[in-house]
Amino acid sequence: MHYFITGGAGFIGSTLVDRLLGQSHTVTVYDNFSTGFHAFLDHAKLHPGFRLVVGDLLDRKALEAAMAGAEMVYHFSANADVRFGTERPDKDLQQNTVATFTVLEAMRATGIQRIAFSSTGSIYGEPSIFPTPEDAPFPVQTSLYGASKLACEGLIAAYCEGFGFQGVAFRFVSVLGERYTHGHIFDFCKRLLDNPATLHILGNGKQKKSYIYVQDCLDAMQFIETKAQPGFEVYNLGVDDYIEVNDSVRWITETMGLEPTLSYAGGERGWIGDSPFIYLDTTKIRSQGWSPKLTIRQGVERTIRWLLDNRWALEKR
Amino acid sequence: MHYFITGGAGFIGSTLVDRLLGQSHTVTVYDNFSTGFHAFLDHAKLHPGFRLVVGDLLDRKALEAAMAGAEMVYHFSANADVRFGTERPDKDLQQNTVATFTVLEAMRATGIQRIAFSSTGSIYGEPSIFPTPEDAPFPVQTSLYGASKLACEGLIAAYCEGFGFQGVAFRFVSVLGERYTHGHIFDFCKRLLDNPATLHILGNGKQKKSYIYVQDCLDAMQFIETKAQPGFEVYNLGVDDYIEVNDSVRWITETMGLEPTLSYAGGERGWIGDSPFIYLDTTKIRSQGWSPKLTIRQGVERTIRWLLDNRWALEKR
Repeated sequence: MHYFITGGAGFIGSTLVDRLLGQSHTVTVYDNFSTGFHAFLDHAKLHPGFRLVVGDLLDRKALEAAMAGAEMVYHFSANADVRFGTERPDKDLQQNTVATFTVLEAMRATGIQRIAFSSTGSIYGEPSIFPTPEDAPFPVQTSLYGASKLACEGLIAAYCEGFGFQGVAFRFVSVLGERYTHGHIFDFCKRLLDNPATLHILGNGKQKKSYIYVQDCLDAMQFIETKAQPGFEVYNLGVDDYIEVNDSVRWITETMGLEPTLSYAGGERGWIGDSPFIYLDTTKIRSQGWSPKLTIRQGVERTIRWLLDNRWALEKR
Repeated sequence: MHYFITGGAGFIGSTLVDRLLGQSHTVTVYDNFSTGFHAFLDHAKLHPGFRLVVGDLLDRKALEAAMAGAEMVYHFSANADVRFGTERPDKDLQQNTVATFTVLEAMRATGIQRIAFSSTGSIYGEPSIFPTPEDAPFPVQTSLYGASKLACEGLIAAYCEGFGFQGVAFRFVSVLGERYTHGHIFDFCKRLLDNPATLHILGNGKQKKSYIYVQDCLDAMQFIETKAQPGFEVYNLGVDDYIEVNDSVRWITETMGLEPTLSYAGGERGWIGDSPFIYLDTTKIRSQGWSPKLTIRQGVERTIRWLLDNRWALEKR
């Protein structure tokens, strides 16, 4: 099969690229390298079934030309940093909502009808039910990031209804693992390498978070790809567990062999729009037969070990 | 108070304009007249508190200039025709999602923090609960129109959280009354005037629909304006009743004094993306003290009488 991967030079995208090539598929990566890394495609570039197109999703003509001949789209490209939503509100709109629309229109122009989409648990805003199921009460958005992903899901669903597309949206908790290059585990590691003596933590450290290991995440996406039905479907993706920020701090410092002095900014939230608790009910996908292999702690430790072995990735930000 | 009304030359917007001027408020209308009518502002133009700015919502500079000095925005401007979503998918994205973003950014630039937004019951897709409450299970979108309104609500909610805005989204059933200029009641009337002998109906005529009379709708919006709390709120707006398309056909033909032969395209849906049944639970707003004054039948009859007295409006489409 010929896959088209947007954001294929990023953390999750490039990991899927290596997997698909290993499974003897053909892969076209489309990425503008605004946050992706050429280094993540070093292995892929050695493979004859791999093609890289450097381009922007908002450039519809270039996107259509690159997409021609592919059979399914994995759409990972996004502005993924929820924290900076209020500084640059247009970023989420353009890079998420409008870019997803452009992907859908390019699919329509090139006759591709299958799409898998990386959505987010942030879409539930501040949920009233934990763990939060896919059919939770209609949420109120608390971040521009969540709002933009909600808009993307709505567009994909409407294309399934109106144009016969087959779409699956995966609402992720935070994803961890090799090639993880943003988010607070990354920030903690980077700051501890700069200054191993102290670590300042936004909020009170008790914010609850749930994570999934990148290979477990991709297992799930590929598993659902084999079962996907016509129309639009949504699946939560996460482990059946959560931690506090303080747990991750302990595992990070232990893995790094450090004992920094911790200080706290205080308050229940780390930043404006931060959801104090994202914990997803994954009964739907588990009932179909998927389950994650790694715990959150194992995911955190693998992430830190990869960052320590790949310091160039820390330097780039 | 100084209100800024987008789409103020349209059906609902211009009706609110006349109301607000009658209540001695100052009103700025911003409209590009893509679907609005100058005639709807004939009364308003005689009023010293009225100002009209002809401009497009996507023209941010013009929008900001027009908005300066206003205290609250009623955002009605939209591509409101759900039926043509699949012919011009970019229309809903640009005129609804991106335009709403531009309104929010212009508000931020000019220091306005209050917004009331005309959303839609289409946002519930094909609901599993009737009547459908505001906190219904997370819906799957079935139209580009619904998807775009969902995106708008998400943006407004995120601006409330991130920038301290006070926003209210009203999810309407279809609105009827004087100045009604699109939708199937309009189409039926127009076609019966062209050919009083026959009427062809999309679907099987049994599609259930709910309506609200425009003055009841505006009563509700103004009522909530007086009670609005900080943050984001959502209210369904409709009457506690629904009809079948065939009921509206009977009332329309009776009001027009016609007995056409009816024919049916068949099928449960009138058009791709049409929701076979929109019927909203309005307990939330009723519990605060609002209730509608007119029945659906009265709304349909007033609409037809207005169209018969204002045939120019039928000719313009």
